[in-house]
Amino acid sequence: MTAQFSKYLSSHALSDSDIDRISSLAIPRLLSRNDILLAEGSICRHKTFVVKGMLRIYGTHTDGGEHILQFSPENTWTLDAESYDRQIPSRFNIAAVEQSEVLLWLKADFNQLLAEIPSLKSLSEQLISRSVHNGRQRLLTVLSASPEEKYNDFITEFPALFNRLPLRMIAAYLGMSVKTLTRIRHAQLHR
Amino acid sequence: MTAQFSKYLSSHALSDSDIDRISSLAIPRLLSRNDILLAEGSICRHKTFVVKGMLRIYGTHTDGGEHILQFSPENTWTLDAESYDRQIPSRFNIAAVEQSEVLLWLKADFNQLLAEIPSLKSLSEQLISRSVHNGRQRLLTVLSASPEEKYNDFITEFPALFNRLPLRMIAAYLGMSVKTLTRIRHAQLHR
Repeated sequence: MTAQFSKYLSSHALSDSDIDRISSLAIPRLLSRNDILLAEGSICRHKTFVVKGMLRIYGTHTDGGEHILQFSPENTWTLDAESYDRQIPSRFNIAAVEQSEVLLWLKADFNQLLAEIPSLKSLSEQLISRSVHNGRQRLLTVLSASPEEKYNDFITEFPALFNRLPLRMIAAYLGMSVKTLTRIRHAQLHR
Repeated sequence: MTAQFSKYLSSHALSDSDIDRISSLAIPRLLSRNDILLAEGSICRHKTFVVKGMLRIYGTHTDGGEHILQFSPENTWTLDAESYDRQIPSRFNIAAVEQSEVLLWLKADFNQLLAEIPSLKSLSEQLISRSVHNGRQRLLTVLSASPEEKYNDFITEFPALFNRLPLRMIAAYLGMSVKTLTRIRHAQLHR
């Protein structure tokens, strides 16, 4: 499982010895579809890298529905930053969308790696900055776009994800009902 | 202007000598209402601390309207992280909601301070993590809540801001029309 991860780190300019060191502290885990990696109310103790498959992070609001913040396909990271940083109960869930292979690092281990390996630290800072930016961009889309624009943005941004996701999850990500999503798709197919 | 900032840093466990060093590289600036600190398309060259007043960061989408991502009142920081980190044109604007006093640091200077002062580095990491978290929480609210819930969340979370903001800005933050916002307020006042 770590070969794929080594390739990822190597493409981000980490040396072979750094990669070995980072991999040596990784805990591999297999997840079946719908397995929960982090449950709302529990503490996020790991950083997670998705080697294969796809996870989603979602919250439930007062309406009881699932609202998806982010999909994490292969070669991406996921966690609940607030729960992880402050070791407080998470308000979000992380679950497998499909059968997945992930690598986990305990917080103490990962902090050790960040202290030891400047290029991992720098990669980590890049990823956090991108995460802040993506969150803002996504917020802007959710606030401003029409349902049709949201749908088009999604298929432009994630062409490879569309066919791997059930419609109800795409709707839960876009903040619209499955009915609205189906109507938009139908209209576009018949254009 | 730096007395207020010193108090803020001191409450975050920075030493007097660190505070002096950080303040020595700050560029003070006064902004009138509606002054633009960062314009969409230009590069975000500074970190900004709001000493007095309030800024907002907003984007414009294909519909041409203003969509507010965040309000930054006194004792908070603001920037466009992606533009700042990568020195690429910003997709957002930062402007003064009211007459404001801010402190700016050039990126090279702030990086120097982060390298010199571990407790500033640690404060900075806390703020970034909180920013990721707030973005997620806000996204969840925008995706899931009814207009009434969004309004109630806002007045619960920012009781002190409500009276300082024009209705059109609250509407632009909540992702609803001024008409809807006015209807909700009216209904609550007459309950």
